[in-house]
Order: sequence, then C-alpha cells, then structure tokens
Amino acid sequence: MSERLDPGGDVVELLRALIDIESVSGQEAEIADRVEQALSGYGHLEVLRDGNVVLARTELGRAERIVIAGHLDTVPIAGNVPSWTTRDSGGREIIWGRGACDMKGGIAVQMSVAASLAKARHDVTWVFYDNEEVEEYRNGLSRIAREHPDYLEGDFAVLCEPTNALIEGGCQGTLQLQVELRGVAAHSARSWMGHNAIHDAGDLLELLASYQPRQIEVEGLIYREGLNAVRISGGIAGNVIPDRCVIEVNYRFAPDKSPAEAEAYVRSVLDGYPIQVTDVAAGARPGLDKPAAAEFLSAVGGQPSAKFGWTDVARFSAMGIPAVNFGPGDPSKAHADDEFCPAEDVVACRDALIRWLS
Amino acid sequence: MSERLDPGGDVVELLRALIDIESVSGQEAEIADRVEQALSGYGHLEVLRDGNVVLARTELGRAERIVIAGHLDTVPIAGNVPSWTTRDSGGREIIWGRGACDMKGGIAVQMSVAASLAKARHDVTWVFYDNEEVEEYRNGLSRIAREHPDYLEGDFAVLCEPTNALIEGGCQGTLQLQVELRGVAAHSARSWMGHNAIHDAGDLLELLASYQPRQIEVEGLIYREGLNAVRISGGIAGNVIPDRCVIEVNYRFAPDKSPAEAEAYVRSVLDGYPIQVTDVAAGARPGLDKPAAAEFLSAVGGQPSAKFGWTDVARFSAMGIPAVNFGPGDPSKAHADDEFCPAEDVVACRDALIRWLS
Repeated sequence: MSERLDPGGDVVELLRALIDIESVSGQEAEIADRVEQALSGYGHLEVLRDGNVVLARTELGRAERIVIAGHLDTVPIAGNVPSWTTRDSGGREIIWGRGACDMKGGIAVQMSVAASLAKARHDVTWVFYDNEEVEEYRNGLSRIAREHPDYLEGDFAVLCEPTNALIEGGCQGTLQLQVELRGVAAHSARSWMGHNAIHDAGDLLELLASYQPRQIEVEGLIYREGLNAVRISGGIAGNVIPDRCVIEVNYRFAPDKSPAEAEAYVRSVLDGYPIQVTDVAAGARPGLDKPAAAEFLSAVGGQPSAKFGWTDVARFSAMGIPAVNFGPGDPSKAHADDEFCPAEDVVACRDALIRWLS
Repeated sequence: MSERLDPGGDVVELLRALIDIESVSGQEAEIADRVEQALSGYGHLEVLRDGNVVLARTELGRAERIVIAGHLDTVPIAGNVPSWTTRDSGGREIIWGRGACDMKGGIAVQMSVAASLAKARHDVTWVFYDNEEVEEYRNGLSRIAREHPDYLEGDFAVLCEPTNALIEGGCQGTLQLQVELRGVAAHSARSWMGHNAIHDAGDLLELLASYQPRQIEVEGLIYREGLNAVRISGGIAGNVIPDRCVIEVNYRFAPDKSPAEAEAYVRSVLDGYPIQVTDVAAGARPGLDKPAAAEFLSAVGGQPSAKFGWTDVARFSAMGIPAVNFGPGDPSKAHADDEFCPAEDVVACRDALIRWLS
C-alpha cells in the first residue's frame, strides 16, 4: 500500500489521491482498505469494515443521528487516471479524472468532515460503499441494508452524489413496462391475409409523443415526470408481415406516488394496451419538512431542487429515513470521458457540512 | 445411384420418386444427375448439363420456342421425406412430403411432358435449376441468364411453381426501403433534454396503417399492392431516450411500374421521410397478349389471375420474355411442414401442357 490518505489535510489533494486509486466496480478492496486505515486514526470514530463497505460512526449520545453516504466505485477508466488539474478562464482549479465528480469528490468531503468534527451537533454515521455503478444485487449499500439494517439507522441522510453543491431532494421513481402487440403473420406479397403488428404500434407512439409530462410539487420541490418508449422491436424478415411488435416504455414518476400508484396511473394513460410491468423502483420524498433537513438547508443556503434521476437516496427512503443528494460536481459529467470536478465545489460542500454539524 | 427415374411412366409415381431424392438448396447434385440421366434416354431431346442446371431442348425448327422451367431444390426437410400418400374425404389422392408442392410436382409435370412430346407444336426448352430457395446470387436460373443467355432464348415462358393448376400471370415487383429516424439521446430521467426517435416513428406507422393499397389492372389481371413496415428497431437501454429508430418497409408493386417508377411512387407516399432503398426487384407483366399465351390460356381453360408474390418469371421478363406461373399444388403450402400436392393437380397440369403443345 502506498502513501497514507490524509483526511485532515487539503481536501482537494485528498480528492486527487482518491482518483489515483483505481476502483472500478468490483475492484474496491484497495480504496476500502485505505479509507478504513485513514479513518481508523481518529479516536472519535468507530470504524467498521464489512466486505468492501467501510462505516465510521461517532457515539456522542446525541438525540439525532445523521447518515452521510457515498460510493467508492467508478465506471471503467477512460484513460483518465491518474488525475490532473487545470484552471478555467476564471482562474478556478478544476480536477480531472475518473470519479472526480461521480463521486470521489463526495468521498473526499465525507472523509474530510468525518476527520475534522470530533464533537458534532448530531451523531453521524459515515458510509463508504462498493458496487453502486453495477447491477442492483451487487450494491454494497443495499447489502448492508439487508444484512445489518442497524448500521444504517438514523433520522436523516445525505448522499454525496454530484449536485453542483446544491441540495437535490429525494428522487423520482422509475417504472419499466412492456407492451406486446400481436398480429397475424403473412407473406408480404399477400399482406391482406395478415395483420401488421408494427402498424398497430403507431397509435401508441403517437400517444406517447403527444403525452404532456406532469410537473408535480412535493414538499416545495417540482418533479418533472417522463413517459417514453425506450426500445422497440418487431419483424422477422423482409418478406413477412410482422405478427409481433414489442415496445418498452419507461415512466419516471414523482415521489408523491408509490410504485402501485405509478402503475395504476400509467395503466390509465395507456388504457387498452396490453401492459406488463417488468421493473419498478420507488422514488424518495425529499424529507425537507424534517427539523434536521431544515437545519441542513439553512446551513447550506441556496434553493433546493428536485432530483430527477433515481439514486440510492431511495434506499434510505425505503428504510423510513428522509434523504437528500448533496455533493460536488456536475451530475451531467458523471460517466463522461471528460469527467471533472471544480475544486471550489469540494470546498463548498465540506464547509457546508461543517457549518451544519458544528 | 438407385432406380432410374421414368418420365414415361405414371406422373404421380414420378413425383413421389422426386420427393424421395433429398435436394435441399446446395445439395442438388443427385437429383440433377438423375433428371439428366432420365431425359438423356429420349432422342427428341438435346440434354445439356451446366453445374446443377439441366436443360433439355427440342430442335424441331418451329417458329416459336417456349421455355418451361422449374427449380430442383427445396427448403430444409421437416421429417417429411420420404413421401407418403393419403386420400382426402372426396377420395382424392394426396401426395405428402418436402417439395410436393414447391415444386417437385412441377418438375414431375415438366419431365413427363418433355418425355411424351416428340413432335410438339413449338420448340421447347425445359429448364431444371438449382438454388431457387436461397440468396439470389446462388440462383441457378439467374446464373444461366448471366453466363449463357442463349440457353434461355424463347418467345414465351412458363414457370411451374404451384398455382393450384391455374394460370397466374406475371408477378409483382418488390422494393425494400429503410427509414432511419434520428433523435437526441438523453437520460430517461431527464427526457426533455433529448428527442425521442421512437416516438417520431408514430406518424409513419399511422400513415402505413391507414394506407389503402391500390389494385391495378394489367392486361386484364388485377394486381393488389401492399406497403408494409416489416421490421422496426430502436433504443439501446431502459434508461436512455433513444436517438435512433429504423423502420424497414416493403412495397409490393404491380408490374405496370418499373423499379424506378415504384421508387418514385413510394417516395411520394412517404414524402418527407428519409428513405434509403436497400433492394428492388422488378415485377413481370403477364404477357397474356402474346399469341403463344392465348393458345396456352385456351388449352388450360379457367380464368387467369395475378401472381402477387415475386417469382423467377421476373427473370424471363427482364430478358424480354413474357412469362406465367402454372403448376400443381397450393402456393400457401410451400415451405409448410404439412406440404402436400393433390395428384389430380399434377395430372391436370401435365394434360394441359400436352393439349397446348400437341
């Protein structure tokens, strides 16, 4: 193992050191070792290791416990490790490299604040987990929630996914469904002897094209829904009238609806079509009405907004813990080959958490 | 080589013997050998062999030459070789097996008539060719037309593909085109940042669904056209707004139009869509206005009808030779696992050709 990570030092240097430890999903052992080792040096933190999940907890006997979480893994490297820095036209330092925004910036913030706050106003459980970028069954946070739900107990949670250092409340749910249209096959030279299943998709696609997505306010945040065909396939040969056309539709729904309500709604919109729901993930309410959230909002400042994509905040929500997203970097740069994070975002997030928790 | 085929004997026995010689496309050597051997026994026939194409010609110095053609190959066997027979409820003999209708029934008719007519009214070129059921570039008739067009010279042609022993004139042309719709990819949680290419297919599919195919009279026969989406595909993942949707469209057109006219027409119907023509095959006029055809019609009797599917008659048409389809068996049983041919169709076709040519 190389140089020890220093959570007590410069947070931007810490981010660069984290990027330089390759940690593509499934290969998080080294970064987990080094995070564990670095935080074990602080007497106010009880450090637990479970697989490649690292937890660091304060036990100050506070009335409330905050859970602050982030994932250690990244999508595959695209020639962008080790990290490098540039300055933008405004003279601001930019850190480049795989994971800079998704989400080693957040990990650096977590480690830095964990190390510096020996006497926080709330007890805090810091969570560093593996396998967020891959199939759900491998997700480290999901595994801990299943095997050791007590490790994740708390009153409010923050997920340090990139949000441009602004609070994004909750997340939308997502529902995947399939519409299978059946026709009657025939030779295309005698098409009137068959029934064209692809032609029947026209009505459905027109309906989806003209559908006006709803904008829904939940606890003061506006969620913008979406209902989209995401895949279509039909036909087996150039001379056969197709007897089957399958359309896969994705519905992103505001967290005012349960998965069952979302399904009922989408069935009403697509009334008359044969619908099979293939996957659904609940959204998460922003939880901005909780006292801890109000404190957090006032410490961070700015206007919170809705999170459109699905994130692991929904796992906290499923455990009854309101949760928000808050972290450095632009979410649209997540997974991009030119992934980067502004140094000032990292500093701003660290300072905001310290203001809140001091 | 087993028992010699006997073109001078019972035509239904000949059909059964032909079915029993397996001849899936690409494996026609044995059947070609045995057809060649059987016809070589007749002094009035000059037999030529070229690859697995067998030609048998009379050279009687007649004013007109008729070309009568059929393919030796079949689609793959489905447990239906060797042949067997049953009787239907009306007591009629039915011959079952791969190729019974497509088109060893026609081959049996050709061989029987070729053997029995030493002094026909017209000179006749009998053609037995390979690889009709596979890619066009392997087609034996196409190869002969390219390499030895003189072998196929004639004034009128009959293709003995199954037509229920009725005359089907000419054939429709077929044009394949692709419409590629482009959108803008985006995460499906932020669909308003993209443009859904699958949704854009709705208009086109509606247009195709409501399109009324034309019925066009050519030389007294009614051709019924067709314009159909035969394949569609789009989308790469359940969480991505698709930026591409490809629709493959098949247009079957009456033989009053050239391929260029068919393309111009379909472009006018699909005005505004980005169209790429990927394949086109000309149709064939029925040629029923030719004297030889009139003789043929009166010998066969019945009402001729239009051929909707594309057949090799178009190859004759391309060489300037009018051509019709006329053969035993129901074309809808071609390629079916329960392929069969009524014995009476085989006899009727043989007798009609003999009436015409005697």
